[in-house]
Amino acid sequence: MRSPAGVAAELCSTALAGDRRSLAKLLTAVENRTPVAEAALRTLYPLAGRAHLLGITGPPGAGKSTLVAALVGELRSAGRTVAVVAVDPSSPITGGAILGDRVRMQAYAGDRDVFIRSMAARGHAGGLASTTGAACAVLDAVGFEIVMIETVGTGQSEVEVAAAADTTVVLEAPEMGDEVQAIKAGLLEVADLVVVNKGDRPGAQRAASQLRAMLGGGRGGLHGPPVMITTAATGAGVPELLVAIDRRRAEGALRDDGAARLARAEAEVRGALADRIGRRLDEAGSATAREAAVRDVAAHRIDPYTAADELLAGLVGVEAGSRR
Amino acid sequence: MRSPAGVAAELCSTALAGDRRSLAKLLTAVENRTPVAEAALRTLYPLAGRAHLLGITGPPGAGKSTLVAALVGELRSAGRTVAVVAVDPSSPITGGAILGDRVRMQAYAGDRDVFIRSMAARGHAGGLASTTGAACAVLDAVGFEIVMIETVGTGQSEVEVAAAADTTVVLEAPEMGDEVQAIKAGLLEVADLVVVNKGDRPGAQRAASQLRAMLGGGRGGLHGPPVMITTAATGAGVPELLVAIDRRRAEGALRDDGAARLARAEAEVRGALADRIGRRLDEAGSATAREAAVRDVAAHRIDPYTAADELLAGLVGVEAGSRR
Repeated sequence: MRSPAGVAAELCSTALAGDRRSLAKLLTAVENRTPVAEAALRTLYPLAGRAHLLGITGPPGAGKSTLVAALVGELRSAGRTVAVVAVDPSSPITGGAILGDRVRMQAYAGDRDVFIRSMAARGHAGGLASTTGAACAVLDAVGFEIVMIETVGTGQSEVEVAAAADTTVVLEAPEMGDEVQAIKAGLLEVADLVVVNKGDRPGAQRAASQLRAMLGGGRGGLHGPPVMITTAATGAGVPELLVAIDRRRAEGALRDDGAARLARAEAEVRGALADRIGRRLDEAGSATAREAAVRDVAAHRIDPYTAADELLAGLVGVEAGSRR
Repeated sequence: MRSPAGVAAELCSTALAGDRRSLAKLLTAVENRTPVAEAALRTLYPLAGRAHLLGITGPPGAGKSTLVAALVGELRSAGRTVAVVAVDPSSPITGGAILGDRVRMQAYAGDRDVFIRSMAARGHAGGLASTTGAACAVLDAVGFEIVMIETVGTGQSEVEVAAAADTTVVLEAPEMGDEVQAIKAGLLEVADLVVVNKGDRPGAQRAASQLRAMLGGGRGGLHGPPVMITTAATGAGVPELLVAIDRRRAEGALRDDGAARLARAEAEVRGALADRIGRRLDEAGSATAREAAVRDVAAHRIDPYTAADELLAGLVGVEAGSRR
């Protein structure tokens, strides 16, 4: 058996040379947060930072996957490279695969400059944000110019993931149900660009006007985020949207000291820290203590904070010992 | 200024004596994960463990809030006490309030045996599961017989929260859109009881039959979870649903060694541990190191794991020092 570092070194080397199978293996490692992923990130992270990370979110039925497919088509027509990470909320257990417009995306099956990946969040709490950040860093490092992160914008974690992109596009559609309407309000807070999709439906213009009125005085002073109209299914409005996205890059959305980049870095650091501590809790010795603590909490013999303090004292003891 | 422990002791004492304002203050403390919450949980956690925690989840538009209101009505008719925690996904920034059928719930404004609370998840990643668990423990400790947790079942975290209840009810409605249909598959994996709501619509019987066929061989051996039909708006089927819920209690769903209780305890312990570590990272001294590490990661000078290792070494040093 080769060491994780050895496996990672080979995968990084071949992925950087353009091998898509190695890239896919790296992303699987990232998704499962293995030691190979950790070793690979040490190599790849310093190479990342050039891609424009684009979050695409919105309520169910707004047409996210169709818009992503249309944006991919527009980018490819211009000879640009693009990767898509579809963060999949459908199954906490098996990891389903509901996002991604598979029919339209099959057009790119033989295109090496498009890479599409569904990801399910697994493992410890908070994994979604840091796992997605790590996946973006890998895709960025191997040279994709734009990395899109597609999420259904109804869950806390999913919205946070999209909001941590350099540029966050929030999709709306005219005439959605009440609950979806209410969800929109929360989503709009994180939008850099607002898109009313299904622009060929009656009410699209009115929805856009209402959104402009609502957002006019918000976020960032005098002007709210631009509100655009697209019909992703026909491609109408998509070139204009891409121009607006590119303008964000020109305006400095990718600066290392930008709020989105700092927030993403913080999520990744906290995720890595949680990985470290989680792994240490799972190690022999600690695992027994953790299981006993969990049983005591489940039986309400002790509270979670007391249990956490006991476990932390144990971890620190182990750590202090190992450093002597 | 009184100490957090002093404030907590007084709030616990009055909340246990039935004061609803103190209860509300405790839940605010829990939501914000303050030191008062931590001190209160040390007192209240050992008193909890008797309530039946009931997760209610389903896609947007399935009628969750209406069903919750109908179940509350049914419980109150029988003289039983009930608390509702509506986990609100609408806004990661301001914390919105979309769940809860406010019109129907106003009927209980003067009823001391009903307590309704919207909660937004804030703070560190993974907060949703452990914060909700802590809120349930508080409501359980002060004596509510049933604590319902209502979530929109489209986000990873939200589904996990509902699935950590003793009994998880997954709501469906006939005739929903494609994306919502796909979301359902993931939700069904966590269901102890499946409810087809809006049972007066055409297609409800057929939807229930399809679900029974789909689930028949699943989960727990020969029989899948029961599939029931309700029309929450009229109350049809709600008494039968409550019987099925109560049967789960009789069948041992509340046992301390049950899988749901162990999973919940583990989420709470990991949440408390993350609180501890997060707070230590925010303390003077650590905060500077953390900000520097985040800036280095944002600028891709170092990777998140290297940053985490450096921070952890610093934390361990502080901890080891404080224990001497």
